[in-house]
Amino acid sequence: MISEIRIIPVLDIPLIKEQDDLAKIVSERIELEDKDIVVICETVVTKSQGRVVDLKKINPSTRALDISKKTGKDPRLVQLILDESKEVLKIGDSVIVVETRDGNICASAGIDVSNVCGDESVVGLLPKDPDKEAEKIRQKLKKLTGKEVAVIISDTQGRPFRSGAIGVAIGVSGMKPLWKRAGEKDLYGYELKSSIIATADEAASAASLLMGQADEGIPIVVIRGARHLKGEGSSKELLREKEKDLFRP
Amino acid sequence: MISEIRIIPVLDIPLIKEQDDLAKIVSERIELEDKDIVVICETVVTKSQGRVVDLKKINPSTRALDISKKTGKDPRLVQLILDESKEVLKIGDSVIVVETRDGNICASAGIDVSNVCGDESVVGLLPKDPDKEAEKIRQKLKKLTGKEVAVIISDTQGRPFRSGAIGVAIGVSGMKPLWKRAGEKDLYGYELKSSIIATADEAASAASLLMGQADEGIPIVVIRGARHLKGEGSSKELLREKEKDLFRP
Repeated sequence: MISEIRIIPVLDIPLIKEQDDLAKIVSERIELEDKDIVVICETVVTKSQGRVVDLKKINPSTRALDISKKTGKDPRLVQLILDESKEVLKIGDSVIVVETRDGNICASAGIDVSNVCGDESVVGLLPKDPDKEAEKIRQKLKKLTGKEVAVIISDTQGRPFRSGAIGVAIGVSGMKPLWKRAGEKDLYGYELKSSIIATADEAASAASLLMGQADEGIPIVVIRGARHLKGEGSSKELLREKEKDLFRP
Repeated sequence: MISEIRIIPVLDIPLIKEQDDLAKIVSERIELEDKDIVVICETVVTKSQGRVVDLKKINPSTRALDISKKTGKDPRLVQLILDESKEVLKIGDSVIVVETRDGNICASAGIDVSNVCGDESVVGLLPKDPDKEAEKIRQKLKKLTGKEVAVIISDTQGRPFRSGAIGVAIGVSGMKPLWKRAGEKDLYGYELKSSIIATADEAASAASLLMGQADEGIPIVVIRGARHLKGEGSSKELLREKEKDLFRP
């Protein structure tokens, strides 16, 4: 029997500061159940890790100044984007698409200028080691609540070919991020050849429907009733290998 | 007050045949509410439109035979992919990425070989005019139930840079597919410059968490409690303009 999935907001999350304990904050605000997926927006993880940078302290290189001219972006921000990246993939009119040190392909290395602290010169980097951080939060949640949950750290990213951004999983713990269905049968008994669903990304998008991006203040939600693809998982599985990516420049 | 979102399966959907009335089938199986988003998997729309093709009736061209050699795909299927496409974007080891006649960029022009009818030589094309079909179903649902809902026709598509497929909206009616947040304030009062969320795609991904892809037989789900971006909308808004797409070959 297939029953419904619920996307539940964790309410009254305070503004997060460095060293805040996200697991404790969650456990005090919602009654978790086994198999819940706890989706945490990267911004609050970034803040709890103290990964915020004041642009006033950055000295842009010649390369950053050059890219700044092409894109109209603050040269200090460009420097930070370069620092956080393995490779610059594309430079557009007002966009810099890079591969981050963690292998995510996204604009501006995922650096946030909104919802950081209210000072326009202070920006938020992506969390450090999001898989490891998701694992840490999951273990702490287990200790505090006794429940076996999965944890996803989510980001909102733009896409080639499609307009608008959607939620994706940049950190995963306690679930398989990909659901490999090859070998299963369809409704008519036909064997699926290669179907692979990015369940962790779909969960991040589902959570994003509730999180919003502006002043809702819902950075953490719980998904209850979804297929819990129990197992060890890493967000790295969601990154297409460079050699297998037809659109990689 | 922000409350939860529910993703509700529409149970006992029969195997769909040509000319089946999807609105009637939905209205008989679930009590709709105003502001629900009804997400319908493209496969059942395809079948209701009779958009299935027997490959035995296809004569592959020289070009199809050539691409078949490169990809290992059935030359008749390749011919059908070419027929359904405006442009071939990339040919990989076992994949053909095209722009469909409707502007979707996806593998194999979205042609399904599973869940069509159990005969391996019979394949399902993408629905014809998915926006128009979504609109038709929405109007019929309104007539049958008196409720103002939105309708999304969803497909599961792969992505550049990320592994696995996710749900996306290929047909939209009764809601704005993009949530343009520029001008809104963040938690600290900072004005968002350009945030745009692809809400219809996130809804399609949320629905896909429940739909599954093999033999679950849940091709239609209702999303209740999500922000309903009331207004007229077209799936075309979700397609990035060719000139603005940094990764378009």
